[in-house]
Amino acid sequence: MSLLTTFKKEHLTQVEIEMRNFLRQQTTDETLLKSMLYSIDAGGKRLRPLLLLATITGFEKEIKRGMYQVAAAVEMIHTYSLIHDDLPAMDDDQLRRGLPTNHVKFGAGMATLAGDGLLTEAFHLLSQSELDSDLCLLLVQNLAKASGSFGMVAGQAADVQAEGKQLQLQEMTYIHQRKTGALFTFAITAGGLLAQQEESVVDLLQILAGHLGLAFQIRDDLLDVTATTEQLGKNVGHDAALNKSTYPALLGVDKSYQLFAAELAATKNCIEKLGEVSFAKPDLLLTLIEELTLEAREK
Amino acid sequence: MSLLTTFKKEHLTQVEIEMRNFLRQQTTDETLLKSMLYSIDAGGKRLRPLLLLATITGFEKEIKRGMYQVAAAVEMIHTYSLIHDDLPAMDDDQLRRGLPTNHVKFGAGMATLAGDGLLTEAFHLLSQSELDSDLCLLLVQNLAKASGSFGMVAGQAADVQAEGKQLQLQEMTYIHQRKTGALFTFAITAGGLLAQQEESVVDLLQILAGHLGLAFQIRDDLLDVTATTEQLGKNVGHDAALNKSTYPALLGVDKSYQLFAAELAATKNCIEKLGEVSFAKPDLLLTLIEELTLEAREK
Repeated sequence: MSLLTTFKKEHLTQVEIEMRNFLRQQTTDETLLKSMLYSIDAGGKRLRPLLLLATITGFEKEIKRGMYQVAAAVEMIHTYSLIHDDLPAMDDDQLRRGLPTNHVKFGAGMATLAGDGLLTEAFHLLSQSELDSDLCLLLVQNLAKASGSFGMVAGQAADVQAEGKQLQLQEMTYIHQRKTGALFTFAITAGGLLAQQEESVVDLLQILAGHLGLAFQIRDDLLDVTATTEQLGKNVGHDAALNKSTYPALLGVDKSYQLFAAELAATKNCIEKLGEVSFAKPDLLLTLIEELTLEAREK
Repeated sequence: MSLLTTFKKEHLTQVEIEMRNFLRQQTTDETLLKSMLYSIDAGGKRLRPLLLLATITGFEKEIKRGMYQVAAAVEMIHTYSLIHDDLPAMDDDQLRRGLPTNHVKFGAGMATLAGDGLLTEAFHLLSQSELDSDLCLLLVQNLAKASGSFGMVAGQAADVQAEGKQLQLQEMTYIHQRKTGALFTFAITAGGLLAQQEESVVDLLQILAGHLGLAFQIRDDLLDVTATTEQLGKNVGHDAALNKSTYPALLGVDKSYQLFAAELAATKNCIEKLGEVSFAKPDLLLTLIEELTLEAREK
């Protein structure tokens, strides 16, 4: 088994246990629980938990329960955002990760509440995680900033308003930095904070996350143009159908690949710089980034 | 001016400033900000902040900035819940506090996001409020528990599933304890915690809040039957139109009044007991409860 496969098997299982057990413990309504677990269990790459845990590992720190709980919280935030994003009032998506979307399965009312529940329980779990109070409170602040009206929700709002318009590169970057970038940045910087790194290191992690987030978003846009529905587990060509601004639509496919490659190179450059300080085991994070961006580079 | 009017003028203004300033500072998207402020500015009774602040005052403690911030956070949670509750996918309400509902004004997509933004920013504001870290973290935990899938969201979920069914008293009480009761309980117990009261006092506040929450909910159900749209600022007869279970529908109007009166008496009984310990200035809370329940008692 590869390094990454072994790591996923050992550590993602723990993150999933934290999510499921907490939701089961905290939820008094059975249908609400089913609806939340449906989207949690639908899987996905668990990218944000992986980035968080791979960052901690890079600093040669042992992974403890409190860290799994932070990873679980950020994945719950991500999952809620997908449920709300798929709603008829938003993107009106029918398929997600190869399965009917939450509202197709449970109705739009329950899906709205499942999203609200996951969002709230993410803060609940984080606030009672096994961490020192000051660090815990700092992570609550950071997660709220990343996912609220300065971060992810602001990105979604700009995205909703951008439908049908062709945006300029700057506006598109604004949206992606918030929609995808903010939670990536939370995950990677939280890894640094949990590994007790000093401010300058956390700042460098933030720059790394910015580049990686953009690379990932361009890759996502490219896949929507070039992959099949089967490969993606969601309907392709959807961005075009919604008249959404994408990198390929704005820059063309070739130029988008170039920009993607540049952001990827900048990401790796940050990892090298970190290696000069305290990031002594970058292999796992590098393998993860390779895996993440493989499909896009293969085109 | 009455005691309560003076108190509102002085202290609610501060809570509103905390909400508005924080949202303005934190929100990068202009339409999202407008949509969130639209519902915040639509007013309402600010019941949860008032209960919180009146409880602190009852313990003869001075109100400081951190307490306004906690009050602002709970009001933001309440406001998000109204926005989502009014959505077409939920109750599909057109009118709230005499104004078009958020989704009528901004569309269902933006209203969903305004709710998500308010919910997230509530935890953001609370987590960076001017309080000792341990108390702050405890309040984040309590607010999340009260508003998540153990509390308010669970109540909403049960409510959605109950449409069209006539519930038994026990099921209806379950729903109300969560939909309304949980945030009332948070507000009143947070008042006790902020006033540095010991556990036994906070436990008694929790019992008080349970009775008050039920009294308030029965009153709300009664008003939907007996008041006019003009008096309420929202459409009356709406519960019946949605085939929602209400106390008057289950018990009849007279028996509902009796139950309401019993819960109100139990609330006052708790205040008396608290007075024997450290709740030396109950007048403000009592006046607030009088005002709250006046319309129902007048029928």
